[in-house]
Amino acid sequence: MEVIKGGVTAAKGFWAAGAEAGVKYRNRKDMAMIYCPTPCRAAGVFTSNVVKAAPVLWDKEIVEKGNGVQAVVVNSGIANACTGKTGYAYCRQTAEAAAAALGIPADGVLIGSTGVIGMQLPMDRITEGVRKLAAAVAPGAEAGHTAAQAIMTTDTVPKETAVKLTVGGKEAVVGGMCKGAGMIHPNMCTMLAYVTTDVNISAALLQEALSADVQDTFNMVSVDGDTSTNDTLLVLANGLAGNPEITEKNEDYAAFCAALHAVNETLSKKIAGDGEGATALFETKVIHADTKENAKKLAKSVITSNLTKAAVFGHDANCGRIMCALGYSGVQFDPERVSLWLESAAGKILVYEDGLATDYSEEEATKILSCPEVTALVDMKMGDCEAAAWGCDLTYDYVKINADYRS
Amino acid sequence: MEVIKGGVTAAKGFWAAGAEAGVKYRNRKDMAMIYCPTPCRAAGVFTSNVVKAAPVLWDKEIVEKGNGVQAVVVNSGIANACTGKTGYAYCRQTAEAAAAALGIPADGVLIGSTGVIGMQLPMDRITEGVRKLAAAVAPGAEAGHTAAQAIMTTDTVPKETAVKLTVGGKEAVVGGMCKGAGMIHPNMCTMLAYVTTDVNISAALLQEALSADVQDTFNMVSVDGDTSTNDTLLVLANGLAGNPEITEKNEDYAAFCAALHAVNETLSKKIAGDGEGATALFETKVIHADTKENAKKLAKSVITSNLTKAAVFGHDANCGRIMCALGYSGVQFDPERVSLWLESAAGKILVYEDGLATDYSEEEATKILSCPEVTALVDMKMGDCEAAAWGCDLTYDYVKINADYRS
Repeated sequence: MEVIKGGVTAAKGFWAAGAEAGVKYRNRKDMAMIYCPTPCRAAGVFTSNVVKAAPVLWDKEIVEKGNGVQAVVVNSGIANACTGKTGYAYCRQTAEAAAAALGIPADGVLIGSTGVIGMQLPMDRITEGVRKLAAAVAPGAEAGHTAAQAIMTTDTVPKETAVKLTVGGKEAVVGGMCKGAGMIHPNMCTMLAYVTTDVNISAALLQEALSADVQDTFNMVSVDGDTSTNDTLLVLANGLAGNPEITEKNEDYAAFCAALHAVNETLSKKIAGDGEGATALFETKVIHADTKENAKKLAKSVITSNLTKAAVFGHDANCGRIMCALGYSGVQFDPERVSLWLESAAGKILVYEDGLATDYSEEEATKILSCPEVTALVDMKMGDCEAAAWGCDLTYDYVKINADYRS
Repeated sequence: MEVIKGGVTAAKGFWAAGAEAGVKYRNRKDMAMIYCPTPCRAAGVFTSNVVKAAPVLWDKEIVEKGNGVQAVVVNSGIANACTGKTGYAYCRQTAEAAAAALGIPADGVLIGSTGVIGMQLPMDRITEGVRKLAAAVAPGAEAGHTAAQAIMTTDTVPKETAVKLTVGGKEAVVGGMCKGAGMIHPNMCTMLAYVTTDVNISAALLQEALSADVQDTFNMVSVDGDTSTNDTLLVLANGLAGNPEITEKNEDYAAFCAALHAVNETLSKKIAGDGEGATALFETKVIHADTKENAKKLAKSVITSNLTKAAVFGHDANCGRIMCALGYSGVQFDPERVSLWLESAAGKILVYEDGLATDYSEEEATKILSCPEVTALVDMKMGDCEAAAWGCDLTYDYVKINADYRS
């Protein structure tokens, strides 16, 4: 497996486009399309929020139907959540507009929306946007990059990645794009992620691989603890790599899962590092926990602690807050066995040993915490399970962005 | 029942003091003492954090022993958490110093600490502080107020309240003080609260009344979702009102519970309204939920949502965030039945009706959200259970305070 340039159009047969539709934002691209001339197998995971946006309901149905998917249409600016039957009908209208413009069936069109909750979409602009997208859709890295830009809301950078793998003797690619900076606490956020691959794999195994991997990747990210109404992660597989179809959990499946994991983990970390207002990616790795589940709970409790996040912003090694967040995670453990390191490109220091603060250098700790990627490494000394979770610091800009998001 | 002036010294027989001990802060009082010449029955509830501060361990033992309590010694600045056996021994030394100075048994002395985690207490200054306190301790509102000031950390105001009630034909008082502004998400934070009463009540019923009431008061407050290592709520009852001892759940017990609830709820709201950096108390009331437990989960989910809190700071009626927070609370419900009002001294408006945003006036909503106390009223239309939770807005100052708390 090798990381390559590109994103959602890196795999054979996937086209994309971005367009300015004026849904809510002005003077920027705010609609994106992914298109594949070959029908794709699709797998998806969606928000666990009881309040589910209309496009989430639409996509779940399409994925469950199992027909070939050929297009994804996404808008930023308005989330189409809390919009009732009208909002759902708008999903259908959007799909129908895309189907007509592309000459494909409407039940092969997935929909994504991200932005303000509680507003209806301006359907005239959406359908006009769909026509522009269908006319502009094209293969190549440039087109994929434009799509990744169009789905941004408060994101500061477009988020893409791709890897190359060999499967059944054939070269294949898994690539993807995502967006998400606030309301990010996916259990399955407004996190939208679209992964494409030319690997030939059965629909059942595609879904199984996705459902398993999301537990260790997107679901381990939190910017603010708010699980969105719109979280959607979709994988489309068109089979154009020409490998024999993966229908069992053999080494080809393992190769695909490894590639999918690499793409999902990279996209997850891009979301965490670009969290609203964030100046740093804050990772917590828990090792030697008694169970995987507990390792995950502990790691996630630390990266979601507002006090810890504010301390990371201040480059302040106030690690008692990390001990505190471990303590309220819901996991039982002996505090007097826990050791804790801070780690980054600037070095690594032990700050707590067996539950007690060490005599570490504050200066060195501050240097370590001043890097754009910071890790807290927690040794529970209970077993052999581990997990990582990704968040970001809590900054003035997070408050600024969210105190006047709608204006 | 009637609200009266005063706090921890409002009930007969309770004395208090504050003193400057230089534990960590400079030029301010940082140690407090409550003293009662008459041995008291004591009840307590403590943090659910696995990482428990040394004074929490000490107080639990003292309360469980059930000997008469005669003094409480509290310091601010250092939490005495993650301090191991040494930290626990320091609790004993503090109690012994107080016992010697006051001429009472050491196991009648409760200890409280709040501040930075992971540092050891400077015991020379603590014992000197205890001597000062024992010399200064006095009855009266002034002494109680000084104690309430001395236990503050990032609090901006001292927090006290008291009520008068009649019980068994006698006039009695329940009064209290508390502190807490950050690391506030009591499940049973550094929330320290001390309630005193002259009501004559059995130790068992005192604990039962406290344990029940904390569920609807302090445990429904959240500033930042971080459950502290030090949360402690203690009630001391000296019996000096002269009422026949309350030993069963009769109308005297009900009168005491109502007074205790009034004191606990007022102190809880004072903590929420003075949350670190807060400009507003943000209350969420959920009505017509199917169960009390669900009503509480829903209310708490809204007041802990960072996005909602930031919107309150911005006076922005971005109520989709409230719908979203209800949705990820863990409670199952039909989003299309939920109605939502915003309410404050400036008025009340319906912003969501049956799951859909109404055509409300943004101007009016902003006016309502600009008050120092704001309520979101949520009607679930499922049953007859209700709950309230109290939080605050998320502001630049919260980040500022917590990015450099230790410096």
